[in-house]
Amino acid sequence: MSFNTFGRAFRFMTWGESHGPAIGAVVDGCPPGIALTEGDVQPWLDRRRPGTSRFTTQRRELDEVRILSGVFEGRTTGTPISLMIENVDQRSKDYSEVAQAYRPGHADYAYDAKYGFRDYRGGGRSSARETASRVAAGAIARLVVPQVRIRAWVEAIGGEAVDPANFDDAQIDANPFFCPDAAAASRWEEKVDAARKAGSSLGAVVACEATGVPPGWGAPLYAKLDSELAAAAMSINAVKGVEIGDGFAAAALTGEQNADAMRPGADGPAFLANHAGGIAGGIATGQPIRLRVAFKPTSSILNPVETISRTGEAAEIATRGRHDPCVGIRGVPVVEAMVALVLADQALLHRAQCG
Amino acid sequence: MSFNTFGRAFRFMTWGESHGPAIGAVVDGCPPGIALTEGDVQPWLDRRRPGTSRFTTQRRELDEVRILSGVFEGRTTGTPISLMIENVDQRSKDYSEVAQAYRPGHADYAYDAKYGFRDYRGGGRSSARETASRVAAGAIARLVVPQVRIRAWVEAIGGEAVDPANFDDAQIDANPFFCPDAAAASRWEEKVDAARKAGSSLGAVVACEATGVPPGWGAPLYAKLDSELAAAAMSINAVKGVEIGDGFAAAALTGEQNADAMRPGADGPAFLANHAGGIAGGIATGQPIRLRVAFKPTSSILNPVETISRTGEAAEIATRGRHDPCVGIRGVPVVEAMVALVLADQALLHRAQCG
Amino acid sequence: MSFNTFGRAFRFMTWGESHGPAIGAVVDGCPPGIALTEGDVQPWLDRRRPGTSRFTTQRRELDEVRILSGVFEGRTTGTPISLMIENVDQRSKDYSEVAQAYRPGHADYAYDAKYGFRDYRGGGRSSARETASRVAAGAIARLVVPQVRIRAWVEAIGGEAVDPANFDDAQIDANPFFCPDAAAASRWEEKVDAARKAGSSLGAVVACEATGVPPGWGAPLYAKLDSELAAAAMSINAVKGVEIGDGFAAAALTGEQNADAMRPGADGPAFLANHAGGIAGGIATGQPIRLRVAFKPTSSILNPVETISRTGEAAEIATRGRHDPCVGIRGVPVVEAMVALVLADQALLHRAQCG
Amino acid sequence: MSFNTFGRAFRFMTWGESHGPAIGAVVDGCPPGIALTEGDVQPWLDRRRPGTSRFTTQRRELDEVRILSGVFEGRTTGTPISLMIENVDQRSKDYSEVAQAYRPGHADYAYDAKYGFRDYRGGGRSSARETASRVAAGAIARLVVPQVRIRAWVEAIGGEAVDPANFDDAQIDANPFFCPDAAAASRWEEKVDAARKAGSSLGAVVACEATGVPPGWGAPLYAKLDSELAAAAMSINAVKGVEIGDGFAAAALTGEQNADAMRPGADGPAFLANHAGGIAGGIATGQPIRLRVAFKPTSSILNPVETISRTGEAAEIATRGRHDPCVGIRGVPVVEAMVALVLADQALLHRAQCG
Repeated sequence: MSFNTFGRAFRFMTWGESHGPAIGAVVDGCPPGIALTEGDVQPWLDRRRPGTSRFTTQRRELDEVRILSGVFEGRTTGTPISLMIENVDQRSKDYSEVAQAYRPGHADYAYDAKYGFRDYRGGGRSSARETASRVAAGAIARLVVPQVRIRAWVEAIGGEAVDPANFDDAQIDANPFFCPDAAAASRWEEKVDAARKAGSSLGAVVACEATGVPPGWGAPLYAKLDSELAAAAMSINAVKGVEIGDGFAAAALTGEQNADAMRPGADGPAFLANHAGGIAGGIATGQPIRLRVAFKPTSSILNPVETISRTGEAAEIATRGRHDPCVGIRGVPVVEAMVALVLADQALLHRAQCG
Repeated sequence: MSFNTFGRAFRFMTWGESHGPAIGAVVDGCPPGIALTEGDVQPWLDRRRPGTSRFTTQRRELDEVRILSGVFEGRTTGTPISLMIENVDQRSKDYSEVAQAYRPGHADYAYDAKYGFRDYRGGGRSSARETASRVAAGAIARLVVPQVRIRAWVEAIGGEAVDPANFDDAQIDANPFFCPDAAAASRWEEKVDAARKAGSSLGAVVACEATGVPPGWGAPLYAKLDSELAAAAMSINAVKGVEIGDGFAAAALTGEQNADAMRPGADGPAFLANHAGGIAGGIATGQPIRLRVAFKPTSSILNPVETISRTGEAAEIATRGRHDPCVGIRGVPVVEAMVALVLADQALLHRAQCG
Repeated sequence: MSFNTFGRAFRFMTWGESHGPAIGAVVDGCPPGIALTEGDVQPWLDRRRPGTSRFTTQRRELDEVRILSGVFEGRTTGTPISLMIENVDQRSKDYSEVAQAYRPGHADYAYDAKYGFRDYRGGGRSSARETASRVAAGAIARLVVPQVRIRAWVEAIGGEAVDPANFDDAQIDANPFFCPDAAAASRWEEKVDAARKAGSSLGAVVACEATGVPPGWGAPLYAKLDSELAAAAMSINAVKGVEIGDGFAAAALTGEQNADAMRPGADGPAFLANHAGGIAGGIATGQPIRLRVAFKPTSSILNPVETISRTGEAAEIATRGRHDPCVGIRGVPVVEAMVALVLADQALLHRAQCG
Repeated sequence: MSFNTFGRAFRFMTWGESHGPAIGAVVDGCPPGIALTEGDVQPWLDRRRPGTSRFTTQRRELDEVRILSGVFEGRTTGTPISLMIENVDQRSKDYSEVAQAYRPGHADYAYDAKYGFRDYRGGGRSSARETASRVAAGAIARLVVPQVRIRAWVEAIGGEAVDPANFDDAQIDANPFFCPDAAAASRWEEKVDAARKAGSSLGAVVACEATGVPPGWGAPLYAKLDSELAAAAMSINAVKGVEIGDGFAAAALTGEQNADAMRPGADGPAFLANHAGGIAGGIATGQPIRLRVAFKPTSSILNPVETISRTGEAAEIATRGRHDPCVGIRGVPVVEAMVALVLADQALLHRAQCG
């Protein structure tokens, strides 16, 4: 079953394929009276936009968003907000090879197994182009929780991580990698260039931090904040792992090492550590929310790989055309958007139950 | 907002606290006509039951399940199946210390921040005792997808991993650690005993594999199979990380290394690797589904930790009483149950949309 | 697909069959800190309880409710509230006739058509016994919206209506028919007695009014307050019609006749009429919410009716045993409960979106 | 809370306002492989289109639908289907009066009470223009259940009903009233004309029948087929009442009169009556599904009505501009669409649970 809606109180649904006329999102449940114009959404889309450096796909999309409903005289009305982005640079000329053989790592075989056929042009619905809709919806989510600051960055590319000692917030938007470590950014430039020229691709880890989340957002168990964030992050194309706080590292600790001790603070507890990533029992503690997200390397590579055809015969396939050498890079604004969408939802849910 | 239901077509809801009279689950949407008695559920509960070795909590619960509805003459009727397990060994005598001060790592502070107060007896709703309800519901889920075999095991305790070369399926149920490597089990015995005697605790990694999942189950994007499994696993108490397939390791690979090449097989493709953990584009490929789940160390430890009281004053707290020295161990049957519940749901959803 | 959950923010799920060991409901999403004991629920159950007059089924159920979770020290904790009522007077001795042939008007044939078989004892899941669970859950809903007063009554039995001129609120609980018109109650006594003695049954119309609902609750379109109330009422056994405000009578009016004109009032508008039943555009106007619900006559009758057997042969069936001669009478507390459940849900939803 | 999605397995969401640039719907969960082009949707929209006779609003909308996603090479792909209809004849010039005072019967006051302000141009989101989106989505729903035939008609206008003896299926699309009785259509012509010229409006009753629904679709209790249909119908603008089968008339019958007796039939039971409207216990019996829907008179009337202004002062308001003298007439294709949407959903849900 196709489920293209996310959220419980603040909800959004996305639609659209890589090579259709347009993509879009509909946001439902947004509080009324929030100032909103296209100008509040566009900057976030521009940040995700392809073709801005040689390290992303060369597809030229303007990603101009239109708001088609739900806003009157510059304010949200409380009714559904329809967002549309036209696709302008689809090149669907020649997909005969992809139509006939399955690209390993891509959704090709699985879609055919599920649906019997697929829109093979640029990956159809499975294309990361869909994430523009999330970024647009996420821009609205940010306005619902203005007290929260969300920032993500690339923490590692191809196994090469930033040095925490070099972390500089100002660097994140100063290089094409969303890299907070200027020295690492230089090394990545070489690394990603090499992969790009070789027709190869690289995986990446994206880290994200949300500050300003008040203690109490979240819920026990099946809507644990950890669980909602994990579902949100894992719903992004190419994501295969999620950690909250110390994540897998916590599994190697003792209870003493992992305890986030508290002292009396100015306003609630002053925590001495944040192994839990700001969430205990599924509920925010008021500390920064921290998560890490693993992106696999882009499955589109120039080097031919063994595969089978639609009719089950042996074949080889190499992905021609435009692609991101490291899809994780453009994952940064998408992870931020998904975190914003989860937090806006949690803010409304908390208000519903706890006033 | 409290959300205690999981699933879309095959759904379950759990209720109950650690020290209430009982806990339970209601399963809704189960297909009719499936043979079901308490005898189909009890063995899975026995496997999770506390007090069976010195490596788990010494709380003595029989965990006897009763089926209160939804079954007639030994078969499911298609109506809600109510499962109840009485709590028999609650010792609520003295929780005054926990009532007054927040145990770091526990849900204590967050619950108070959200709800204004909390049931402090044994952790109330945040107790891992709730997972018995999941295991009971999961037993029914297994019957819905009898073609699927699900097995989980502990892969590492306190950072010490099994040796893949020693992997022996038969070992998993032959030691108190669900450990597939007999040599590792011996070392863990010592390690967990030491932690237990020191009043400390250890984290663990649980791995899980589901075979027999046909290609096509799952869905694109917001109900990606990866996303559903991540939400399910992350909803378990003490879980802070989830990986599908290679997970974070994939982020360090190149596209060539990560490609799961295919050759013609007897029945569909024969894959040459399974970096993707059996899921591409959110949809099962027919390969084994593989995931890894990180459990933090049990937050209950005997060594006093700095904290604050309900009224915001400096305090120290040490958890007395019974606890699991490594909560990840009993996480094994819980992870299996959650995977079964997700797959039963996906089986029905796939049938709904694709016939 | 079986869906046994109702509500979006304040949700409840029911389980149980007429002749199983127990029935129950689980309420999820209830705000924390509300004073709640069994004593708050029991009076409402007592009002619906069978066997209290000769005009209802003679089944003797105590309908004693137990709260199994979600309450601590007399207050709701914000976690699921599990309510259980044991069945004590099931007489399952002889259902061989019902097992073999379909009772017209009952769910027998439809259940078999859907599920392949059915729990035929007392109607199984389709028995109105399930409504006890709704009344229990509704008692909690009332506590969530204490500013709202909900009262329902029987407006007509077998086509004989109360006289609005005789309407006396105090009468409603003073006769076994929840009849606000003492004269009508006398006539109904005779009428229902005659039907009962003849082994026949009668339909009824239940009216309900909720006062104190603030303007703004509800929502446009797919969750219109009219729509939520209609779904709630129509989900009750034997209900086949719902009207909000003037309902079908409005279809015979002109726009002038149907307009609920307004004048300036002390606190918001003073309405000159309430054709709309307190709802405009799906949203409460602050006027009393008014609805009417049609209950068909109890399908269980002593007079034999033509039918077919499970194997498709011609048969005759007469329902022996205990039944309500007019199921609409005991529908009064059930309609009230459903209205309370909808309004509690809407209260939380409104708070979520509009603060 | 705004909820603009309907359905559980086959779902749709609508967006858009009367005077925005466009309106639309997104259909999610549609099975793959169904032949679909704009040509399958447009005829149903044309049937609902305004301005085709003097008995509907004179707003001139082409209602040309575009399919923006979810279809590839003329077949549904299983991913979301985005439908968009541009608004071309919005005349927003002068809404100053409506902006300042509340039109009785309209959503004006309630929207302001809920959201604090409103898009007053043409009723904004509360305009019946939204129903075009439903009709478009409903056209796709019909393709999911091709075995079902759905037809609706106007049964009464302003209290004047058709004569069942004159019922002629062929008449329904032969007059501007969807009236199956040619004689009644003549009388209505005069009646509606008179109302139109007087600046008044009339209510109407729409009846609908769905044949070909197999026994077994539907579900007990909270998703009773009666309940789903009632929610669907009641979600339509101006609807205030719903009946399944005999509805309120059943409340005046005895059990004997209301019993739908059965005899052995060629394929399942041959029913001797259909008081239940084809649904027993919430599940289809295989008989025709029958429902009746009450539309109140259009609230927009030329005659001035007493009201209050936004600031609470006494005022008078008369609705100028274009409107339907009897909004129930164009309700016919909308009721059909909603019934199709419910049945498509139920078809998939039944398949999910019962194979």
